[in-house]
Amino acid sequence: MRIEILNTGTELLLGHTLNTHGAWLGQELFQLGLRAARQTTVPDGPAIRAALTEILPRADALIVTGGLGPTSDDLTREITAELLGLDLLTDPAALHSLEAFFAIRKRPMAEANLKQALCPAGAEILPNPNGTAPGLYLPPGLDPRFPCAIFLLPGPPREMRPMYHAEVAPRLTTLAGLSAPPNCLTLKFTGIGESDFHDGIDTRLAAIPDLEFGYCAHIGEVDLRLIGSDPAIAAARALVMKRFASMLVSDDGSSLEETVVRLLTIRGMTLATAESCTGGLIANRLTDVPGASAVFTHGFITYANEAKIGLLGVPPEMLIEHGAVSEPIARAMAEGALAAAGTDLAVAVTGIAGPTGGTPEKPVGTAWLALAACNHPTQAWRLFQPRNRHDFKLGISQSALDAVRRHLS
Amino acid sequence: MRIEILNTGTELLLGHTLNTHGAWLGQELFQLGLRAARQTTVPDGPAIRAALTEILPRADALIVTGGLGPTSDDLTREITAELLGLDLLTDPAALHSLEAFFAIRKRPMAEANLKQALCPAGAEILPNPNGTAPGLYLPPGLDPRFPCAIFLLPGPPREMRPMYHAEVAPRLTTLAGLSAPPNCLTLKFTGIGESDFHDGIDTRLAAIPDLEFGYCAHIGEVDLRLIGSDPAIAAARALVMKRFASMLVSDDGSSLEETVVRLLTIRGMTLATAESCTGGLIANRLTDVPGASAVFTHGFITYANEAKIGLLGVPPEMLIEHGAVSEPIARAMAEGALAAAGTDLAVAVTGIAGPTGGTPEKPVGTAWLALAACNHPTQAWRLFQPRNRHDFKLGISQSALDAVRRHLS
Repeated sequence: MRIEILNTGTELLLGHTLNTHGAWLGQELFQLGLRAARQTTVPDGPAIRAALTEILPRADALIVTGGLGPTSDDLTREITAELLGLDLLTDPAALHSLEAFFAIRKRPMAEANLKQALCPAGAEILPNPNGTAPGLYLPPGLDPRFPCAIFLLPGPPREMRPMYHAEVAPRLTTLAGLSAPPNCLTLKFTGIGESDFHDGIDTRLAAIPDLEFGYCAHIGEVDLRLIGSDPAIAAARALVMKRFASMLVSDDGSSLEETVVRLLTIRGMTLATAESCTGGLIANRLTDVPGASAVFTHGFITYANEAKIGLLGVPPEMLIEHGAVSEPIARAMAEGALAAAGTDLAVAVTGIAGPTGGTPEKPVGTAWLALAACNHPTQAWRLFQPRNRHDFKLGISQSALDAVRRHLS
Repeated sequence: MRIEILNTGTELLLGHTLNTHGAWLGQELFQLGLRAARQTTVPDGPAIRAALTEILPRADALIVTGGLGPTSDDLTREITAELLGLDLLTDPAALHSLEAFFAIRKRPMAEANLKQALCPAGAEILPNPNGTAPGLYLPPGLDPRFPCAIFLLPGPPREMRPMYHAEVAPRLTTLAGLSAPPNCLTLKFTGIGESDFHDGIDTRLAAIPDLEFGYCAHIGEVDLRLIGSDPAIAAARALVMKRFASMLVSDDGSSLEETVVRLLTIRGMTLATAESCTGGLIANRLTDVPGASAVFTHGFITYANEAKIGLLGVPPEMLIEHGAVSEPIARAMAEGALAAAGTDLAVAVTGIAGPTGGTPEKPVGTAWLALAACNHPTQAWRLFQPRNRHDFKLGISQSALDAVRRHLS
């Protein structure tokens, strides 16, 4: 089945918004055993018509994103209906849910939103629980010239992704006559890089019959994707785990923060965070996990020295002697957080995110990480991650969460 | 001049690698006063031929990325030469720099790399100081059927981007006969939705001559992009500001957190945060801004009631009487943070992120926001943002930062 992706949006071609649809849909299609044959991005307006005219005769299924909003440059619905020669009719159920969306939020509905309830004759409305723009499904054959199934989805990822899962994936599965998706296992590791797999592992994986594998590297994390028969995946897993078992974050797609919250919950333990250079990112990642409130109780963001002194009891003379980015301060922060919060564990980081603040002895990218635990000696590690500010924060938060994971494992 | 972008690479369509080329090249072209008319992604292999066959007759310039490497699936060079009927000849200078690349790194050159020195007859080699794959420039008219200028660039961004700047941008400027880039203004608003522009504003913007405009909606934010002549942009700005001036976050692309840090710095004021439901996200956004350490000193993440009591001095009986998600608690958190941190301002949020924890009176999505300031009465607002956990946190953090912005404006 030839599947194409068409992303509409002037902002995507101007570079104001990074187009993540292609990568996300590519991964999702792969989970179903399908592939995207091509991805095209066009600006809003008449270019959509040109692209549809080319794609519809050659594709079996087309996923279009964007252009379903209420404004005058949102034309995907109208152009598609016109090309297929279909009338646009107001769908009573879509209108009702649109009105309900605004009623729940106690906001008046603008007249412009009315066009979002329009549906080409013969198409199906795809409900959008996360926004005002419903999607549309035009089954193959509405226009005999184009035997292509068409999905029109909203542009914002937070609306498009749930709609894909609820409405598109099941229909694609049926259209493609799929039985079972291929076996796929993703092993998520932290503390190693992609190149660590090249020393010996890579060639031995390549020698396993019926196995397809690939890496995806993120900051402080590398995902190994294994696809193939059950025995092939089992052999590959055994090979990799022999070397890297202690670095495994998850084998079920769970993020590092999800793994940490799960381990804390299983152990019945609580955690506090004391963050300087990460500025709340560690806590933010933990609280992205539903149920975090049962195990994560206190977070201290002690950006200023007075906050380290006042909230965590760090001795002022220690700050003067060693500086805020130092092993003694990281230890004092972790132990201070443990005492102030009364938790079982506390993790602390202090570092130089940059772009300014570095010195020859402590360049930008330097950080200290400490972990304090009841009835355990406090541990500390020096980190050096010379990256841009955003990636530095992410990398240090990854190291901090991994220290908690290793303590709990 | 019609410019198209063709990105080749199976990993881009499988979603293993996020395609950032479109957004990056789009921004760069815009700086020159040019636009990408379309961006296409195809897998490695014969699909490149199909895409080139479609694009070459209709485009004035084509930028191709990827497929210049040494392996068997790198075919961009070969397919392009074949389509244009050009012989591939070894370029002595390219071969020399390839050999030098390996000599400097004291690594032997594999035989496979030899093909990276091949150059279609009449094309120019584009040096690659950052990798083994030189780029290629095929000027218009090498094949009279295709009056399209073709740039073949390597796929890795760290190689492609410097080559674009050094080799592609100057040639495009000449080809297009460019004078000055167009004017562009992006106005970032918060507290209104895309559809608010439709009531009256949208049609009046459309009536301004020489103006192109578009919206981009994010959670708690909508960006209005204005492109055109100076008078057109000024007229549009005046029209929009008359209605929405108080909601303007920035007119220079600054994010809400950048605006808040800038306003705090200008006013010489400090801020503390007390976060329950946002779990550190407000602090994390603030500390993404370089220089935040001068104005953001203390952050309290009081996920547990004991943290609200212990760190912020919230009275336990108030928690029992009103519950943690209530106006009195939000006020007590903000005032407690102000007192504990000794800052000029403190913002506090408490809410129900879900998926569990909602009640009929306080459903998931409910939150209270309070702002305490020295010598000002504390203000509080009820929020209701029924979204998934991640988007709820983002939306509430947006409201909190906007409350600080409005206080400082």
